[in-house]
Parts: sequence; structure tokens; C-alpha cells
Amino acid sequence: MSLSPPESQLAALSLQAISHDSPANNGEWASILAAQGLDHSYELIKVLVFKPKTAKSATVVPIVLIALNDTVAPAGLIAKLVGAKDPRLASADLVAEFFDGLAPCALGPLSINQINATKIKVVLDKALVDSDTKLAFHPSSVDQTVFMSGSEITAYLESIGCDAPVCDFAALATSSASASSKDSTAKKDTKKDSASAKKDGKIDGAALVGITADKELDFPGWYSQIVTKGEMLDYYDVSGCYIMRPASYFVWEQIQDYFNFRIKAMGVQNAYFPMFVSNRVLEKEKDHIEGFAPEVAWVTRAGNSELDEPIAIRPTSETVMYPYYAKWIRSHRDLPLKLNQWNSVVRWEFKHPQPFLRTREFLWQEGHTAHLNFEDANEEVLEILDHYAGIYKDLLAVPVVKGVKTEKEKFAGGLFTTTVEGFIPTTGRGIQGATSHCLGQNFSKMFNISVENPEGADKEKLFAWQNSWGLSTRVIGVCVMVHSDNKGLVLPPRVAQLQSVIVPCGLTVKTTAEDRDAIMANAKSVEKALKAVGIRASADTRDNYSPGWKFANWELRGVPLRLELGPADLKKNQVMAVRRDTGEKIPMPIADLAIAVPALLETIHDDMYNRAKALFDSHIVKVDTWKEFITALNGKNVVLAPWCGEMACEEHIKEKSARKDDGEEEEEEDEKAPSMGAKSLCVPFEQPELLEGTRCVCSGKLATKYTLFGRSY
Amino acid sequence: MSLSPPESQLAALSLQAISHDSPANNGEWASILAAQGLDHSYELIKVLVFKPKTAKSATVVPIVLIALNDTVAPAGLIAKLVGAKDPRLASADLVAEFFDGLAPCALGPLSINQINATKIKVVLDKALVDSDTKLAFHPSSVDQTVFMSGSEITAYLESIGCDAPVCDFAALATSSASASSKDSTAKKDTKKDSASAKKDGKIDGAALVGITADKELDFPGWYSQIVTKGEMLDYYDVSGCYIMRPASYFVWEQIQDYFNFRIKAMGVQNAYFPMFVSNRVLEKEKDHIEGFAPEVAWVTRAGNSELDEPIAIRPTSETVMYPYYAKWIRSHRDLPLKLNQWNSVVRWEFKHPQPFLRTREFLWQEGHTAHLNFEDANEEVLEILDHYAGIYKDLLAVPVVKGVKTEKEKFAGGLFTTTVEGFIPTTGRGIQGATSHCLGQNFSKMFNISVENPEGADKEKLFAWQNSWGLSTRVIGVCVMVHSDNKGLVLPPRVAQLQSVIVPCGLTVKTTAEDRDAIMANAKSVEKALKAVGIRASADTRDNYSPGWKFANWELRGVPLRLELGPADLKKNQVMAVRRDTGEKIPMPIADLAIAVPALLETIHDDMYNRAKALFDSHIVKVDTWKEFITALNGKNVVLAPWCGEMACEEHIKEKSARKDDGEEEEEEDEKAPSMGAKSLCVPFEQPELLEGTRCVCSGKLATKYTLFGRSY
Repeated sequence: MSLSPPESQLAALSLQAISHDSPANNGEWASILAAQGLDHSYELIKVLVFKPKTAKSATVVPIVLIALNDTVAPAGLIAKLVGAKDPRLASADLVAEFFDGLAPCALGPLSINQINATKIKVVLDKALVDSDTKLAFHPSSVDQTVFMSGSEITAYLESIGCDAPVCDFAALATSSASASSKDSTAKKDTKKDSASAKKDGKIDGAALVGITADKELDFPGWYSQIVTKGEMLDYYDVSGCYIMRPASYFVWEQIQDYFNFRIKAMGVQNAYFPMFVSNRVLEKEKDHIEGFAPEVAWVTRAGNSELDEPIAIRPTSETVMYPYYAKWIRSHRDLPLKLNQWNSVVRWEFKHPQPFLRTREFLWQEGHTAHLNFEDANEEVLEILDHYAGIYKDLLAVPVVKGVKTEKEKFAGGLFTTTVEGFIPTTGRGIQGATSHCLGQNFSKMFNISVENPEGADKEKLFAWQNSWGLSTRVIGVCVMVHSDNKGLVLPPRVAQLQSVIVPCGLTVKTTAEDRDAIMANAKSVEKALKAVGIRASADTRDNYSPGWKFANWELRGVPLRLELGPADLKKNQVMAVRRDTGEKIPMPIADLAIAVPALLETIHDDMYNRAKALFDSHIVKVDTWKEFITALNGKNVVLAPWCGEMACEEHIKEKSARKDDGEEEEEEDEKAPSMGAKSLCVPFEQPELLEGTRCVCSGKLATKYTLFGRSY
Repeated sequence: MSLSPPESQLAALSLQAISHDSPANNGEWASILAAQGLDHSYELIKVLVFKPKTAKSATVVPIVLIALNDTVAPAGLIAKLVGAKDPRLASADLVAEFFDGLAPCALGPLSINQINATKIKVVLDKALVDSDTKLAFHPSSVDQTVFMSGSEITAYLESIGCDAPVCDFAALATSSASASSKDSTAKKDTKKDSASAKKDGKIDGAALVGITADKELDFPGWYSQIVTKGEMLDYYDVSGCYIMRPASYFVWEQIQDYFNFRIKAMGVQNAYFPMFVSNRVLEKEKDHIEGFAPEVAWVTRAGNSELDEPIAIRPTSETVMYPYYAKWIRSHRDLPLKLNQWNSVVRWEFKHPQPFLRTREFLWQEGHTAHLNFEDANEEVLEILDHYAGIYKDLLAVPVVKGVKTEKEKFAGGLFTTTVEGFIPTTGRGIQGATSHCLGQNFSKMFNISVENPEGADKEKLFAWQNSWGLSTRVIGVCVMVHSDNKGLVLPPRVAQLQSVIVPCGLTVKTTAEDRDAIMANAKSVEKALKAVGIRASADTRDNYSPGWKFANWELRGVPLRLELGPADLKKNQVMAVRRDTGEKIPMPIADLAIAVPALLETIHDDMYNRAKALFDSHIVKVDTWKEFITALNGKNVVLAPWCGEMACEEHIKEKSARKDDGEEEEEEDEKAPSMGAKSLCVPFEQPELLEGTRCVCSGKLATKYTLFGRSY
């Protein structure tokens, strides 16, 4: 049913109504269409009303689906899209109640008006929105048929203020990968993108283009779209596992290079230990394993054989590595031993998973070192922490606060834990960025990692002082959450796989072949010139997408700098540079690009960092009283408060600062988020002056340190 | 009991016999010793005879343990060392039978002679071999005591042709890591190293230093020692899993850099897919999974919860990735899609595991690409194969033969498989080096990876042409097997973590502090000069090891170039460069090092490759008849034979070329090795001229190609 009438005819047919009165049978109907040049080149649509399961005391909000007649739209999926429960086809009575007495069969898109739009939820079928052919339906009366295009239907709904998410039911039905329904959820402001895309009519993928959830209003929905549509990640058919697509893996590779360079200079060597741990070894350090045991994945079978003993997949490698440290370290001359590995670990969490932030398998590096004395170990712990802060600041343009964890929050079995703490301004929640632990001698005593005393064999043997330190792909999630916006990803230049895209534009049907060739050739030569100075650049010379579509697409994917090159620019021997982070447009002489582009990318990095830093700083609220504490916390801040340092008090703070559900949309994503109590994030190294006699914000005892508290991921 | 009499006295005591006749009681015994200056400075030894479990028809081969009296030597361990079953202390009758009627209590090392040595297996205690004190025992008669040193006992055994493995029972007893007993197995030629080590008396580790198994005579034992003592790898307490220590992981990092650079230039992007696969997805491609199913590890439990459905750990990622390829590839403009990942996969093989070559978890890269047409796919398959050959040749200095696998040996489910085939001269076996598969459209049809026909929507949709290609850490094992020798690892310079070590030498007690400082300072400045030109160099200025010990240790660890720097050298402003691969000594002016060392390292690389290439070439025997085929094969060659190309014939060749156990020691390691039939390794791209009418070496039908056959890993 999808034939293509000439464009001119389609234009003439907008909102053309056909009376059903005169031609009463199908044959006549067809002949009327033929007479109007339509020749069956239309599609039928359907408008269905669902009633979700609703508490008796609550108001019913019906869901209206507007879809191509052929689209299969499962009720369960519709329910998910609008956050409703168990929707069933509505009774005729309910339809009449909401639509001025209309029968279900008479409903059309035009049955929705400014008044009833506020009482219902509307879901649009992407196939309908994108359809090139005319769509036939009843204009609230079965005796007439109206023809509108998909974009006209969405324009109408927009005009009456009806906010309708668009769902790609067709893609979901044909996709063999089930993944999540999230990345096919979208709201109507995508229309702009799809409209511009449709203009050149050349998009042949069915995927919805732009971000359709607002960062401020629907942060979880926004984040999910950002990472999937920005092609950082895809959902996977094993729950809690995600695919790291090239854009995010590239970030990880930059982090690897940065960190490897620095730790190798410290004498750390990379190695690889097996992913499997025997139960016996895993359980050796009780304190340590207690925290991990509920999340350990067990292999019990190989092929068709049951294993004699189940084998664990490492949740972390202390117990994997330390028996060998005991074997390899015989003399004080074998110290320090400094190994690091880049690997994946598995923690089968049962909490709500989140891309990059909480995943059942994740990539990380884990460093494990052994030293002869505390001083050496301590020095390394802090040096590593500096490198972690450097990854955030120098690569990801994300500010962090360095500090030490409280006894309650430190790594179980270790001596103390240092941390870099980040902040997600939109949710007001803190997030642990990476941790560097001094393990003391706890593990070395457990695993007998000891050496003869260098002062003499008659002196007591010495147990090694150990550290472990780790940073995971979570950093990528933090970076995305901090910088990206409603247009898509905003990637910091140093980790962006593509740093600058050159887009030819201003080409029309009137452009001569010569001019077109000159533009294309110049775009290519700019690419070449930038690559020659180490910039990851690409000229987007595809002729099947419009410049507008390309702009939107590269913005979605977070490319830091777009260089527009049109005939007018070329005449001036310039390009128009457009910053992704600010949208600022800067004309640049082509001759200067090899210097100006690298410099601008550095500026973008610095500006991104400085903006994020100013925002974080403005959200660190220093308080003195509990009342201020709660007010600041509920104002989406983290709180710097004088604290007594006692674990019982910390637990009390958490309890007292928890609050009831305040109905934020976030609830659906992570039920605990807004209601959770405040945890201590860290005792920052950089301390405000603690005046003598300052009291703990909670216990009223003498405060020992200012401590950073917050709701956190 | 281990006091140290002066060296001079020890020398005088060699083979000194004390008659028990005259001094009959302990007091007298002590006074005699005192009179001789011995003063209790001796240790007792024990000589025990074990009878292993033996089939009734087989000849009994007793095992004789020669150990310090205090050494705990478990029978099970002894059994493993000599490859015997269930040894028990032998009866007096059996001892008498083998030792000229001696009673068990009268046995000493000298009871072993040239005749009975051929009928028994002897195991030596490392503590005894290394002992500094005199060892007391009966010289085949209880009425006399003989004193010999450990090295004299081993020299005696050597002189009568008795080949006795040395076992470090003490280290095994104290080591908290159980690992494998392999790395403590050793044979008597270690004596040389331990003797030189003992000279300076400063080794404080208990580990046996040198390689004590001969590459030609005991290849599996040699290989196991090479990789563990060379610190490439350690055995792990989960069977079939190994620890990649920094030396081997460094090789892997060089390979990653080399390959990443090249594939990124081809437009391949790195990504990371989850390690878990659902059963449903895993089983999608039946042909493909059939080969892997018996080796798949299954996770069935997380924490204390049984999973609803078991989840597999990827044995390879075709089925993990391709559902998403189907989702991402919608238009021909989405092609080619070229992704690669560096990850670990798990194949729970039940065959005998071998470090690097056959391990249950291993690191590899797997590239998976999709193309619009066969030509593009085919071109990439061959380009990747060239990069694989390049890794072998340019990094590892290992020659390989490029070719295509037969139908029987190709990747199940693919269209054709190309391969690089290596060769282990010592065993005469071929080894698959890496494979690059053209999958054709088999998987794309199964997973519906298809696009609209660019020639028009009315034309049939096109299924993608796919490739997959992988190279694993097995390459490291091949490199070690090909180049290393009885002194230890020989690492090719481009992948050696340490390329050049500078060893100060010629320093004696008479050296002035000034000269000593000058040597040390120069060693450091040579290190600095070499590092400045990108050479991975280190000055070994430790003062607690002798130069001889350092030489042996760095040779063991395969450092390509040693620079010796002594007072005489310094006077001439030179160092003495010593090549690890040839032992050649080359004086080099210090002023030239920044140029001469890099150049020499390149020469070493080339020489290593050329030698290995000549050896491989000399072991590729071109034959025309079946008789020649078998002769060549049994002469530890691979065979290039005209072949008809039929699968039945290939199976026939394998069957006919299998042979009975010929008693090689290898048997213990991998029972199938020497008796296995020949497989086709590949049809080499480079073909000898096939004369018209040439017949297949086996079936007698017309030959279609020369094909390389061999026993293989």
C-alpha cells in the first residue's frame, strides 16, 4: 500500500476531505480516487484508545494510539512508553466520555483537541510520522475521509499542545535483538529532525534521530537516549550487560593510554590474571569477601559436565592475585611489586542497572602493589589518586573532589580509602569517581606476603604494605551526564573519537558542478590538513544527507567542533567553526586551521572543565546546622558539614536525611534515588578552617573534620 | 645442622671415608670428627627406594630418592616427577634385586652404578644438591661413612650416565601457593647455575635458578620451565588457567599496538561486547555452535540465587555480536561495519592444557566485519592475514606459511578460512598461528543482517558478506618454543620488555671505591643514553648479586643484548656487547652506543627470523609418494604433497599416518602428540608447479593442489 504519487499532487491533497455520502460502494470509491489522481496511493491509519489499570481513587488517563493500520503495537510496550500499567482496549462508554460522545470507529487524529488533550496520553507510530504517502482517516465522523501526511498530523497535535511520544514499533518488531525498549522511546520534538530528514527524503534507516527527553525533566530517559542514540552503547539481551560501541570504547582507550603512561613511569607493570577463582581462595579474606559474596557469579557446568566444585568469576582480584604475591615475594629485594591489569569483572547486582554506572560486567583497571613500608605505600596511594583526578580533569573535563572515605564507606579489609568524588548537577547527586586504597598489612598477613627483615634474620619477619586502586568505565557515564545536553552528547575534545567534522553546505540545485567540486575538494583538503597535525577530523561529503541532518547527527554524537564550508565561505577562504559545547560560531581562515583548530579544541576542553567546575562548586554548600543541611541537600546540593567522625552518627545522618517519595519522574528509574538518605562522600583533603569548638552538624559533639555528604549513585 | 667449615677443609674432605670399626660409640665418633676439624658440620642424607604401580606384564622401574635426611618428600610428588603411578617404599627383596643384594639401610649414592642406573629412575633433592656442608652416608656398606658435597654427588651420578631430576621439595613445602609441581621439576644440569650462584652466596630465594630440562630431550619439561622460570607465566590454582606475568603481557601489548595501528588504518574500530551469552542466542547458528558446545562454561548461580536460565561465557562472539549487526545495519550505507575487540574467551577444554597454546581462558582479538559484497570481504580477509603474518615476522621473528584451510579444517559455518601456519622444529609439529575467515552470507542469513538493494527497493534485499578473524596469546607460546634454548628465553628484541641490560663486572675486593663508582656511574649513563633513543634498557647495579649470577639470570629471562662494563672496558671507553641469540661478543665504543645498539637489535631480530626461516624451510619436505610422506613425517617434518582435495582422502591420510607409541618422553605431556595422524595444515598460497597428471599422494586421483600436512598442536 505504499505507492508514491508525485509530490505536486500530495501538496494539493492536504486536508482534503472526501464525502462518503455520494459514492457508497468500493468500486465508486476507487473510481473517485482515480479521478483525483490518487490511484490507491494512500495508507489507512488506526486510532485506538486504551484504559490503563488505575487505582479506584485515581483519575483514569486513557492512552490513545495513532498508528498505521498495519503496525503491530503491543499493549505492553505502549504501557511502558507512557509509564502505565496493564492497558486494555477502552470501552465505547469511556471513549464517548473523553471524545464528545464519539464511537470508537469514528475516532481520528482530529478528534483530539486542546481540551481532551490534557486528559489523555497520546502515542504516535514512527512509521506513520515518517510516512511519505497520504494517510486516510475519519475526521471525527465515519461519513467522511480526510487525507493528511504524517508531518501534518504531528504538526496538528503540536498546535493543540498535545505532547505525543513517537515509538518505532516496526523496528522493535523486526529487530531480532530484544534489548530494551528505551532506545525506541521518543517524544514529538524529534519531528523537527525527522522533518528535516524527510525533506531530502533519503533517510532509509528506521531509527528515530534526535533526543526527545529533556535532561532537566526526565533525566533517566534523557540519559538512556543520550548513550544509545549518541552510539556510545547499546542495550544487550542479558540484563545488566551493555555493549560498548566504538565511541565509548575509544574514550576508554584514551584513558588507558593516559594512565598506562603514568603508572609505567612509576614502575608499575601490566599483567593478566585469570577471571576464575576457586571458592577456597575467594573465601580466604572474610571481611573482604562478605561485601562481594551476594554478587558473585558461579560457573557450575562446562559443556554437559557438572564441575566438581563451582568456580567464581572474579568480582575483584585481591584473592586471585595475593597467593602469587606470597609466592613471588621472598626477599625485601622483591619489593615493591607493582602490577596492574586491564580486565573485566562481574558483580551480579540485583539493583536497577544503569549504562556505565552500574553494570553486571564492567571494564576497569585494578592495580595491586606491595611495599616494604607504610610510607612508600602511602605515597603511591596519593600519586595514583592524582592520576585519577587527572583522568577526570585532563581527559574528561570533569571536576572532582579528592578526599578520604570514612570508616563506614572505606574498602572492607583495607586500612583507608582515598577517593575522587564527582557530582551530577542535574540530579544533585554525588558519584564516586575512582578509589585508591591503602590495604595496610591486613591482606599480607592473611596471605602471608612477608619477607625476612632486612635488618637481620633474627628480627621479626615483615609483612608487606599493600595498596589496590581501580577506575572503571563508570567514568564515561559521569562524563556523559555532566556535559551532554538536549541536542545529544557533548564529548570533551581529548577523548572524542572524531574531534572535528567538516560539513559542506549551501549547495543547491543551482550550484554549478564546478562550485560543488571545489567545496568537496576543499572539505577533503581541510580534513587532510587537520589530520596532518594530529586532529581526528573527517569531511562528511555524503550527498544523501542534507547539511541540516548532518549538523543534527554530529551534534547528537557529540563532535566537539563542526566546520561548515559553503560557497560564501570558500570565497572568503574561510570556514565557519561551530562549537558543540556553546553553539558559538567563529569564522576561521582556512590557512590558519592547522593552528586555530587545535587551539580551539584546547579552549573547548578548558571551558567545559571550568563551567563544570563552577557548577560543582556552586553546589557544594557549606553548612553549620542540621536545618541548613537538609535544605541544602533537598536543593540538589552536596553538603560540606562539620562532623564528629563517628560511625553511629553517620548512620543517623543517613536515616534522618531520607525523605518520602516526592513524585519525581526519576522514581521509575531508580526508586531509591530522591528519597535516599545522605551518605558521606569523603572527607576532602582541602578543608575549610575548622574553628575551635565547632560542633558536629548531627551529633552535636565536637567536630573533627568538614565532611562532604550527599545523595549519591 | 648447617654450619660452615672453611672452604679449604671442605676441599680436603672429598670422598674421605671414615671407618666405623674403631670408634664404636657416639662420643668417640664426635671426637674423631672434631679431630678432623669437622665439628658436626655435616648433614645426614637418606636414600629411599620406591616401587611404582606397574602392569604385571611390564618391567618394574624402581625410583630412588636421594635427599637430605630432613627433607619431606611426598611419594605423590615423586611419582609426578618421574611420571610413575602410586609409588610405595620398595621391599628389601626388590632393593636387593637391583642393588647387588644390599639391604635398604646400606644404600648410598655410590650404590648406583653404570649398570643399575639404566634400570632405575633417580630423583635428587635440591636442598642436597645445593648444600654447602659435607653430606654423610654409607658407601654401600653400613660399617663405613663417606662424606661428599652435593655437587660431588651430582658429578658422580653424571659420570655414570645417571640422569636425575632435581626437585625443590623444601620450596614446595613452604610455598603457600599450590600451583603446579611443574616449575619445581628440574634436572641435574642446573648444577652449573646453582654452583655459580653459590659462589657469591647471596641468593636468598629458594627457587631453582636455571633451566634444567633439555629442549631436545625433554621438550615439554623444558617448555614448562622456560615459561615459568623466564617469568613469562605462572601456573594457577584453577586448572587450565595461567597467569600472564609482565614479560608476556608486554609482548601482548606490543602486538596490540602493532595490530591496532594497522586495523584502525583500515577503518576498523574497537568495541567491547559482554562476556555473557544467553542460551537462546548461543544456539542460533547450529553448525557454528556444535564445535563449541562441549567446551562452554555455564553460569547458573549468582550469590545464592539460581538463575532462571543458565548463561554461557562466550567461547567466541559471533552469536553475541551478530544480532546487533542486524539491528545497526539497515542501509547499504551502514556497510562496511568493521569492529574488533580485545577480550578473553573461555573454552573449557578437557584435553591436556598447555601454557599459551591451550588454556581454558585466553586473551585474543576478534574482528567481525560486514561488507556489501564478496570482493570487499575477500580483500579484507587477505589484508588481515598479512597483518597476522607481520606480527609473526616483524614482531616475533617467527616464519609462517600463509594458505587456506581445507573444507575439513575450516571454521564451521564459514565460507573459507585463511591461516598462517607455524612450525615447532623441536617436535616437528605444525601449529596454527592465526586465522582469518570469510564467513560468506551464512551468518547474515541466519541473523538477518541485510540491506535494501542499492539498485532499487524492488530488487531482492542483500545479505551482508561477513568476515571474522582472530589471533590469540598462543602466538607467545609459539615464539618461545621457536627461539628459546637451554639457557632460557630468547626474546625477539621488538617485543622484549627489557631490550638491553648493562652489567658492571670485573669488580673485586681490590677495586678502589673510585673505580667502582666510575663503573656504576658509567653503567647508569649508558642506560640513560640508550633510553634517550627509545631502547628499553636497564643498568643492573645491584651489589648483592655477582656478575655471573646476573648473566645467567638475564639470559634466563631472554634479554636480547647484554652490555658488560668492567674496569678494562672503561679504560678503552667501550662495553662488551653479548648477544643473547648467538652468544657473540662484540666490543662497542661507548660513544657509538646510541646508534650501534639499536642497529644491533635490528640485526638480532633479522638473524633470529632468518635462522628460524631456514630451519622451517628445511623441514618442509616436498614429496610425491606415500612412502616419502610417512618417512618425512616421522622425521619431524611437515610435508608438502600433491593432493586430490577430497575430505574422505584427508581422513584417510590422518588414519594411515597415525603410528603407535614410540616411547618418546613427550608422551607424558600430550599423549596424542607423536602418535597422532597428520592433518592438513593449509593449502599454501605459494604453490610449487603442479605438473599435469600429478596424482594425489594418498588416493591416487588427480591432484588439485600441493597441500601442507603435518602432525600439529
